[in-house]
Amino acid sequence: MVSFVDVNNMVRWIQRDGVENIITGMVDYLEHDFRRWERFDKIARVASHTPFGVIELMPTSDGEEYSFKYVNGHPSNPARGFQTVTAFGVLADVDNGYPTFQAEMTLLTALRTAATSAMVAKHVARKDSKRMAMIGAGSQSEFQALGFRGVVGIEDITIYDVDPKAVEKFRRNMEPLGFNITVCSGVDEAVIGADIITTCTADKAQNQILATRHVAPGVHLNAVGGDCPGKTELEAEILDDAKVFVEFPPQTRVEGEIQQKPEDFPVVEFWKVLTGAETGRDSEEQVTLFDDVGFAINDFSALRYCRDAVKGTDLETQIDLVADPEDPKDLFSMTSDVPSLL
Amino acid sequence: MVSFVDVNNMVRWIQRDGVENIITGMVDYLEHDFRRWERFDKIARVASHTPFGVIELMPTSDGEEYSFKYVNGHPSNPARGFQTVTAFGVLADVDNGYPTFQAEMTLLTALRTAATSAMVAKHVARKDSKRMAMIGAGSQSEFQALGFRGVVGIEDITIYDVDPKAVEKFRRNMEPLGFNITVCSGVDEAVIGADIITTCTADKAQNQILATRHVAPGVHLNAVGGDCPGKTELEAEILDDAKVFVEFPPQTRVEGEIQQKPEDFPVVEFWKVLTGAETGRDSEEQVTLFDDVGFAINDFSALRYCRDAVKGTDLETQIDLVADPEDPKDLFSMTSDVPSLL
Repeated sequence: MVSFVDVNNMVRWIQRDGVENIITGMVDYLEHDFRRWERFDKIARVASHTPFGVIELMPTSDGEEYSFKYVNGHPSNPARGFQTVTAFGVLADVDNGYPTFQAEMTLLTALRTAATSAMVAKHVARKDSKRMAMIGAGSQSEFQALGFRGVVGIEDITIYDVDPKAVEKFRRNMEPLGFNITVCSGVDEAVIGADIITTCTADKAQNQILATRHVAPGVHLNAVGGDCPGKTELEAEILDDAKVFVEFPPQTRVEGEIQQKPEDFPVVEFWKVLTGAETGRDSEEQVTLFDDVGFAINDFSALRYCRDAVKGTDLETQIDLVADPEDPKDLFSMTSDVPSLL
Repeated sequence: MVSFVDVNNMVRWIQRDGVENIITGMVDYLEHDFRRWERFDKIARVASHTPFGVIELMPTSDGEEYSFKYVNGHPSNPARGFQTVTAFGVLADVDNGYPTFQAEMTLLTALRTAATSAMVAKHVARKDSKRMAMIGAGSQSEFQALGFRGVVGIEDITIYDVDPKAVEKFRRNMEPLGFNITVCSGVDEAVIGADIITTCTADKAQNQILATRHVAPGVHLNAVGGDCPGKTELEAEILDDAKVFVEFPPQTRVEGEIQQKPEDFPVVEFWKVLTGAETGRDSEEQVTLFDDVGFAINDFSALRYCRDAVKGTDLETQIDLVADPEDPKDLFSMTSDVPSLL
């Protein structure tokens, strides 16, 4: 039997532990796994593109456990009543190849994306960061806000989205939780005085949500929405003046903001900041940029964290996913041996 | 909600419809999908290798539906009480990226592997084939036997395995179903008078289960067990004198028997035989060889067939795998809006 966390139990877990606590705890798992980056089997995610969106598989393994995530990205989905991103994932035992854990990952991906953003900002944003500008108020926005409060200490948020209803939803969800929120009429207004700027929009196009004039010295850019070939958010020149941190270069060069740049554009693999092999922020004036596309190891950490958190509680159920006949060479007997099965 | 066929319901479906009927029906789906081969998004499967085995993801899409299979291969598993191969798979709607169907695929893979072998033999083995030699009596063997009876008309089986208990198991399972079974003391004995030779062993090594002396003119070789880098069953010279049919050359050249041969070793893509673009068997004396490794489209067909067969019956249950908030931009509300969920 495979342990299973469905949508309802994922919701119950989040209600039990709280979004902010979960993201904070997940950062510990992420840091643990990023520090042993070199032990992982790593490939760029395997994408099946269509005119409407993309379906991706994201496998990885540390040699003891294997994980993969199924995830779609369909920017036109919300207009039709569907989620832009839905996902589920699986952990497996490398030793015998059996799956051990399956979970919905639409909510879990929202948590892990915020946790990854917050982890990077914790290490490369200015230590005194208090105000975050958010461009984009979609599904991911509240998770980003809570992650940055829990991990980085952000209290003040300025926010802008082309969809005023989305901004109103963000305010409705976040104000009761104690944030100081300023709704802005455009990007120019939103970025004034920001220590951190998070861009998280979903349009599958080469956009310039943020231009060089929006980026003051010392700002940390958390660029989340550019995560697919042909899907970027930043004016390319922003990259020239920033120290750019990435997860897995072979994937980011195809999917991230740096797809706008040559193959040899200089980037820092973030895991090296954690191990001390590379520096993070070099000065108070430096612009730092996390070109986030989301990598398989992030999901590996998120699945492990969720699995450990729900273990032995009624938040996990069991699904019968692995046929296991008494004699392993006698699979056929399962098709005829009724009494032993029913 | 995602429609789900777990192990128990897969067993109930097989008991309802019968292995031989299911394989025969599945060949129709396979032929339908192989005929429109060019419409599919095709990549070699994505493998994560370890010293003990391999875990693979096998995605494909016809532009309307997407499928993937998770499958492991661990040759040393049976000695430890586990299945060599376990699997599960998913269908998804390409239009919005949502998963629609999930099924256990340990049993379903056994059915689809036999269906694929039988489909190819139906088109390239000699029409008067009646006797099959089987080398290997593991989990897959009974499914192969029933597939070849249902689709090709095989009644007489000679069988050999290094493990006499496995052979005894095969005889115990198959004799009641009306086969004429001859248990042989070695490969040399088993292949005498065979119209078709099926090799289906699991050792992860470059073996020579079959040598040139075993291959008489006119025989069809159904080589199933060589399906991983470093895992082959045939003496390389057998390939030189045979017309070799494969599924997807970029995958087979890495995983199949032809991994023993140069990159430009001539092969025929089997789907072209179905469309008439290539000939199958050219003479009664020609040796034909299906270098089967198993491709993602085979699983696409198998999942579609199973989904259609169980639709609307109590053989499918529903699992809650896709978070779907009322407002698609308000995923966060699911984490707080208890009353609407519970």
